[in-house]
Amino acid sequence: MFALIKKLLQRNKKYYPKEECGIVGIFNVEEAANFAYLGIYALQHRGQESAGIVTANEFSLHRYAGMGKVTEVFKESKLKQLIGNSAIAHNRYSTTGASFLRNAQPIRMESRFGSIALAHNGNLSNAWSIRQQLENEGSIFQSTIDTEIIFHLMAKSKEKDLSQALMNALSMVKGAYSLVMLTKDTLYAARDPNGFRPLVIGKKDDGIVFASETCALDIMDAEYVRDVEPGEFIKVTKSGVESLFPFPKSKNNMCIFEYIYFARPDSLIFKKSVYDIRYKLGQVLSREFAVEADMVISVPDSSTIAALGYSAESGIPYHMGLIRSHYIGRTFIEPSQKIRDFGAKLKYNSITSVVKGKRIIVVDDSIMRGTTQRKIIKMLRKAGAKEIHIRISSPPTMFPCYFGIDIPTKRELIAATHTIEEIHKYLQVDSLAYISHEGMLAAAGDEGDHCSACFTGNYPINVEDNQKSEYQNQKMLFDEYGIEENS
Amino acid sequence: MFALIKKLLQRNKKYYPKEECGIVGIFNVEEAANFAYLGIYALQHRGQESAGIVTANEFSLHRYAGMGKVTEVFKESKLKQLIGNSAIAHNRYSTTGASFLRNAQPIRMESRFGSIALAHNGNLSNAWSIRQQLENEGSIFQSTIDTEIIFHLMAKSKEKDLSQALMNALSMVKGAYSLVMLTKDTLYAARDPNGFRPLVIGKKDDGIVFASETCALDIMDAEYVRDVEPGEFIKVTKSGVESLFPFPKSKNNMCIFEYIYFARPDSLIFKKSVYDIRYKLGQVLSREFAVEADMVISVPDSSTIAALGYSAESGIPYHMGLIRSHYIGRTFIEPSQKIRDFGAKLKYNSITSVVKGKRIIVVDDSIMRGTTQRKIIKMLRKAGAKEIHIRISSPPTMFPCYFGIDIPTKRELIAATHTIEEIHKYLQVDSLAYISHEGMLAAAGDEGDHCSACFTGNYPINVEDNQKSEYQNQKMLFDEYGIEENS
Amino acid sequence: MFALIKKLLQRNKKYYPKEECGIVGIFNVEEAANFAYLGIYALQHRGQESAGIVTANEFSLHRYAGMGKVTEVFKESKLKQLIGNSAIAHNRYSTTGASFLRNAQPIRMESRFGSIALAHNGNLSNAWSIRQQLENEGSIFQSTIDTEIIFHLMAKSKEKDLSQALMNALSMVKGAYSLVMLTKDTLYAARDPNGFRPLVIGKKDDGIVFASETCALDIMDAEYVRDVEPGEFIKVTKSGVESLFPFPKSKNNMCIFEYIYFARPDSLIFKKSVYDIRYKLGQVLSREFAVEADMVISVPDSSTIAALGYSAESGIPYHMGLIRSHYIGRTFIEPSQKIRDFGAKLKYNSITSVVKGKRIIVVDDSIMRGTTQRKIIKMLRKAGAKEIHIRISSPPTMFPCYFGIDIPTKRELIAATHTIEEIHKYLQVDSLAYISHEGMLAAAGDEGDHCSACFTGNYPINVEDNQKSEYQNQKMLFDEYGIEENS
Amino acid sequence: MFALIKKLLQRNKKYYPKEECGIVGIFNVEEAANFAYLGIYALQHRGQESAGIVTANEFSLHRYAGMGKVTEVFKESKLKQLIGNSAIAHNRYSTTGASFLRNAQPIRMESRFGSIALAHNGNLSNAWSIRQQLENEGSIFQSTIDTEIIFHLMAKSKEKDLSQALMNALSMVKGAYSLVMLTKDTLYAARDPNGFRPLVIGKKDDGIVFASETCALDIMDAEYVRDVEPGEFIKVTKSGVESLFPFPKSKNNMCIFEYIYFARPDSLIFKKSVYDIRYKLGQVLSREFAVEADMVISVPDSSTIAALGYSAESGIPYHMGLIRSHYIGRTFIEPSQKIRDFGAKLKYNSITSVVKGKRIIVVDDSIMRGTTQRKIIKMLRKAGAKEIHIRISSPPTMFPCYFGIDIPTKRELIAATHTIEEIHKYLQVDSLAYISHEGMLAAAGDEGDHCSACFTGNYPINVEDNQKSEYQNQKMLFDEYGIEENS
Repeated sequence: MFALIKKLLQRNKKYYPKEECGIVGIFNVEEAANFAYLGIYALQHRGQESAGIVTANEFSLHRYAGMGKVTEVFKESKLKQLIGNSAIAHNRYSTTGASFLRNAQPIRMESRFGSIALAHNGNLSNAWSIRQQLENEGSIFQSTIDTEIIFHLMAKSKEKDLSQALMNALSMVKGAYSLVMLTKDTLYAARDPNGFRPLVIGKKDDGIVFASETCALDIMDAEYVRDVEPGEFIKVTKSGVESLFPFPKSKNNMCIFEYIYFARPDSLIFKKSVYDIRYKLGQVLSREFAVEADMVISVPDSSTIAALGYSAESGIPYHMGLIRSHYIGRTFIEPSQKIRDFGAKLKYNSITSVVKGKRIIVVDDSIMRGTTQRKIIKMLRKAGAKEIHIRISSPPTMFPCYFGIDIPTKRELIAATHTIEEIHKYLQVDSLAYISHEGMLAAAGDEGDHCSACFTGNYPINVEDNQKSEYQNQKMLFDEYGIEENS
Repeated sequence: MFALIKKLLQRNKKYYPKEECGIVGIFNVEEAANFAYLGIYALQHRGQESAGIVTANEFSLHRYAGMGKVTEVFKESKLKQLIGNSAIAHNRYSTTGASFLRNAQPIRMESRFGSIALAHNGNLSNAWSIRQQLENEGSIFQSTIDTEIIFHLMAKSKEKDLSQALMNALSMVKGAYSLVMLTKDTLYAARDPNGFRPLVIGKKDDGIVFASETCALDIMDAEYVRDVEPGEFIKVTKSGVESLFPFPKSKNNMCIFEYIYFARPDSLIFKKSVYDIRYKLGQVLSREFAVEADMVISVPDSSTIAALGYSAESGIPYHMGLIRSHYIGRTFIEPSQKIRDFGAKLKYNSITSVVKGKRIIVVDDSIMRGTTQRKIIKMLRKAGAKEIHIRISSPPTMFPCYFGIDIPTKRELIAATHTIEEIHKYLQVDSLAYISHEGMLAAAGDEGDHCSACFTGNYPINVEDNQKSEYQNQKMLFDEYGIEENS
Repeated sequence: MFALIKKLLQRNKKYYPKEECGIVGIFNVEEAANFAYLGIYALQHRGQESAGIVTANEFSLHRYAGMGKVTEVFKESKLKQLIGNSAIAHNRYSTTGASFLRNAQPIRMESRFGSIALAHNGNLSNAWSIRQQLENEGSIFQSTIDTEIIFHLMAKSKEKDLSQALMNALSMVKGAYSLVMLTKDTLYAARDPNGFRPLVIGKKDDGIVFASETCALDIMDAEYVRDVEPGEFIKVTKSGVESLFPFPKSKNNMCIFEYIYFARPDSLIFKKSVYDIRYKLGQVLSREFAVEADMVISVPDSSTIAALGYSAESGIPYHMGLIRSHYIGRTFIEPSQKIRDFGAKLKYNSITSVVKGKRIIVVDDSIMRGTTQRKIIKMLRKAGAKEIHIRISSPPTMFPCYFGIDIPTKRELIAATHTIEEIHKYLQVDSLAYISHEGMLAAAGDEGDHCSACFTGNYPINVEDNQKSEYQNQKMLFDEYGIEENS
Repeated sequence: MFALIKKLLQRNKKYYPKEECGIVGIFNVEEAANFAYLGIYALQHRGQESAGIVTANEFSLHRYAGMGKVTEVFKESKLKQLIGNSAIAHNRYSTTGASFLRNAQPIRMESRFGSIALAHNGNLSNAWSIRQQLENEGSIFQSTIDTEIIFHLMAKSKEKDLSQALMNALSMVKGAYSLVMLTKDTLYAARDPNGFRPLVIGKKDDGIVFASETCALDIMDAEYVRDVEPGEFIKVTKSGVESLFPFPKSKNNMCIFEYIYFARPDSLIFKKSVYDIRYKLGQVLSREFAVEADMVISVPDSSTIAALGYSAESGIPYHMGLIRSHYIGRTFIEPSQKIRDFGAKLKYNSITSVVKGKRIIVVDDSIMRGTTQRKIIKMLRKAGAKEIHIRISSPPTMFPCYFGIDIPTKRELIAATHTIEEIHKYLQVDSLAYISHEGMLAAAGDEGDHCSACFTGNYPINVEDNQKSEYQNQKMLFDEYGIEENS
């Protein structure tokens, strides 16, 4: 079966596991489904592939999920069916191409504990070996997502109590998880001991709310209370909120990429303002790699704040040199008579009157494969830019993430396979500079409590060679699975 | 949890388990998906709730399923994705109201045996207790259908070989199953030792085809070879067809209701012509319960053949006194300003010029709750019928079926709770007669090899009191499960 | 432009005008939309291509229409928007392939008379020349249906009063029309002086109902009052019902094909029972063309009643030798690896146990192109039929209809281009006979008041050569129109 | 009929005519439909209610249109059906609530000139009186859009030649039109003599392209050639391009609101860069209404460029104090348990870490009703803003537009009914200032060639009282029309 790896990987690129997600949990709030809907709407940037909500009343769980964005998946009639005062919800990162509805979260199971639903943000780095072991012991799997092993471990736990069984299960998995779990009468929330992914607690009237980012609290009119701490296990029932720290204490390793690109700038992540850190990244970058120019522009929208910081620090005026279209739908029809740099054109256009004859600093947040940047540079050149200097507000991305961010494989990461000089040439720019690792940490206010392994390769938990290949194996599994669709 | 039974049963009638189904299996036929589609199209009368196909090529299984009729679920683009030369397919009985896509068959699992898909017609009478035991041992369930336990038993079997593991699993279940199971390279077919439900083998070019009824072979241009025998276990690979009888020999108990109502009249069922038996049922009924009248009519379409037999035997001319509409879709909008006997009117209309002033014998195949018959009688009376004599081509239906036919609960079966005299009055007819049990067996050519427990209560396999209540428990489980939908 | 005829006709066969339709009009009935919906549901056999309803309250008209069957087009939410106590509705004959939503009736216009909606069953034989004249005078057209010219003629009429303008318009068109027209406060109904197509009046509570056939009255719980008479013009307002006969008196020419095939057997058409006439057609046919045989069978469902009549008259028992599937949806996917006689197989299957070794009389209602019959004969032969005798309950169909029935062009009509002997050979039957023209008229109780031009070519209104070619021109127009679709 | 105005206007607010649109015309470009699709995709900001494309080959026109955004309406299969090398396309402004598919452009007609399709951006100010006159002469209307009268006038023109007839029709209408019109072999483009709305010409390979803005040329890889001049009439055939100026010469009155808000900043409008003018508006505003503050923020995305100009001129740093969500779909489900300022929250969120304790200048482009601004101010206050100063980069909007921009009625325009002091209080800000009229004109480089009637009430073409009420009448007509929908 492993002999087919290459072939399969080439064949079915689309079933690549992408685990970035937004999650929400709600307890004791009327119309919980409606608020869960608002919550994952605010977290839409964390995943556009699928959306799902499970609600609970005292009798049953009620689940609805579908492929697409939150407002596409949920219609009023569906939300009305999702009765109950507690809920969990999830949205999932968008892939290009088909994907499985069966993989849409929250997932749900029937077991000796009754009906349980779970929504998970992160990536379990030992999922593959646990899955193999479980299969050998007679477990059967319905989905291809790592999250499903938590259910199996819980169901097979010797513990009689569900809380204990969940803690038991979590103590066996490695990697990143921020999760919420729902039964008829209880809402659980947990964050892995390293605290890779964010999770916050809010208060709404007499109820409790959990969410990946504070922007979800804002839209629900809920008040931010505090972060769920790394390693914390929270159980919410009618009797109140219980907080436990059942796992061995670990160093914190919060994902620095959340600041750089992933989170919304109006959110607090790991208790800090995303906006502030991005602005500082731009300032540091300007100090580290100054260059004479007529203007600073950004690749909207993700790098705009860093560009503002760069502009403020350097005194070089900020302009919108590129405009971004927000109307791209799920499918876009490409004329067979090719348009040059078609993909980039659908998303961006340069503003000729701004850039013509100008020396331009383009601030971007990161370079993965470099293909889009190359097209944007060409677009700016065609519009008449005289000089183009690229400044990246993160160090070169050289290593895959095993903890929940979708970073291309090493083979595809341009910084993993090329020198900076080669990238400079490939992009056809006048200069190229990345923020230093130290600069980035300083901007983020790091106290040794972040994970920046995608830049350094220093994975905070031991991801040995065989475990890395496990990750490859997981991908292969998804390929093996073939097509799975429902109407 | 059991204390809520009544309440739940009332609340959520719609999640009632209805397990009648049509199944198809195909091996070594090009475009297997297209032929599977034709097969379940021909078996559409066995289930209109959902339809699904799984195909296999040497690398993977490919599955597509949806709610609705075969031609609603499958579009050309979907069938094209279902590549491979082998396939299994399934359609499921229509319920009124919402139902679970997750329960749509063929079901599929990932396990130590790789990807496996299974389609099942029947009802496992000890599913509930096995499920409870499996849950206690740590298994988790994704659906609420009994079929899923076969997967679990197989996965937990000590056998290394999949064939052995499947035989192992089947040896532990009781009740009715005709099933097909597919892996990347093998197609299995099996029928329970009692042979409750039908399953036939056909030949198409160099390939092998299985189907619930021969009408599915006809549409595929496949040739009927023989029935899969009760207790037979068949394994089809590229090396050929293997037939085993691994289970303890049992008396045959083929479902007599397939002849009376369920199967298509152009099919052979249990090696006999459904048309011939229905015609004989009408003849026997005429001999047993003659009455003077001007015409014989049927409740189209299911009782037409019995009515023709009754007419032929009695010499009383057959007429179409009722016409049936075939355009009813999945939802029908009822005016709030009620129309009398609305539901019956959507389906039937009486032909006044035929029935006015006439003495009429109405032949019907069975009476469950009696409500539709009562409305039809009123319609005929309103159209001017002078006398109405009902003749039923089966004995009074008094007992639920635990082997795969959806018969209402005893509480709802009018013959279980009322005397024939009371039914006579309720229907407001001039006379009412059911065929005798002996008459029915004679028409069916019974040699002690049929199950007629829905008329007698003599269940061929021991369905003890606690097992009967198990069945109730299963229903309750479905209620507990709450809503489960996908877009 | 006419030079392209052949090319275009070949290219775009699908835009062939097919004008059979069912219509409904309702005045002063609460929830008029719901009852209009029921009415066209009962008339579904008259057209499955599109369905539409327009309602009126005192302020405005409300329209909803779509492609497909009534239950596919209308959902509860849509019906709820169609407020008002009066309504007209329409469904249209199903064509194979794409068709225009813009042609869906009821059509609607804005003019000096305000908003008006109209639904029409029939075919205006001088539509093409009127349309050309109107275009030359500066009228613009939105659809390709003949019905639209009534609107233009009405709008251009010198009459100030809408009733007068409509009468004016109708006096200028030739051909067949049974129509209903709705404004905010008035419902009109009219039938052409020849009375080609049916239209009945019913009473529902305090309201008035019009429908193509009485079966639509039955489902609405409305009472049949009488037929709208040929040449009658009815105006219904709150003040009451006015009946006028404003057109020159003409001989009646009711369409005899409605009895033979088109109408529902539970309807009264032209004051007669369709069932009774079909039965008599079978009886006459049996007297005219007796043959020794073991059984009579029908091609279900349309010829079953004639077959029963044939069987009764001949004393040869009636059997169901063919079964018909009612599950065919709008699109059916054909395997590329062809199945013999695929199309017929989707719809029919022979019952081997019935026909094997038997001499069979197959009664059918008509032969158009003969292709389906040929496939059915082959199917019966393969099932073992010893002799096959075809009996047709109408004379040879040899001429197109210009008055609202979709009969293939002369080129395609097998009886127009072949002798009976040649058809006999083509069908590969042991004998073939058509009912005589006199026999048909006798069965229909004709008093010189029917149109049977499709059998004789004697068109009741002068359809001269150039007018016949006009009809061709109309078809060409539809081809010229190109594609017109909406999402 | 006019007596009902108030009632109707209140009842059916949603059928308000909103005529902003984007248009595209393509001639002699392979796959014209695909490029038309790209063109209206780039013009999506000009209308999100409906989208339509008509293509032409030598035989026929082919049309497809639907409600929604371009990528929602057009799927690959639909575009493939739209064959031909010429095309016109259109998208239409989004209204909240239902609207008519029948009003979707391009509209199409059949007439003595054959099939013609037309797409129009603008508003014909004498449409109502022409429509009434046409109705009185017997014309019938299918839609409620003013554009339809051009078809009628053309069809009724005495001219034999289509070009002449179109010029004839255009000479009779008053108001704003930029339009493209397509027949089987010719593409027309025209712009009204005042030049209210933009229209540009581009070159793509050997073909010609028209579009509302240059951003549509960019995405098609077409080169900007020049503007279609006010009063210019262009005819494109295989023989070449003809340019005529058939209408009486008029002063130019280009819409200044296109610069301020409507057009895309990467477009040239009326030969000028939208970006440059917006930036200058901000600069002028800063000079006119300076205030001490800590930061300048914008209400994204439309006022960002003016805010950058304000910031640059004032030296006060620009920050993103508000973030905007781009994921809002067509329907959004509001919890019944109200959230404060729900609507604004779905679209905007304030960034607390940015605004807390700060004195903020909020630059916005215009104030219509003021409701959204008020909510945004509250949001910023809640986030801790110390002072809030609003600066508007256009003068107070006080008058409706009769030339194609959707500005609320006078009753709803806050500046038409309140003093600036009152608005200041209503918005609860520390200061409020609008750019001066002169300042705006200076920024726009006006040479007396713009229309700014929405600020001054000086309509460039005589819109007398009765004509203004005509506009009201038109709206009423739309209300009268009732519901019109298709599935």
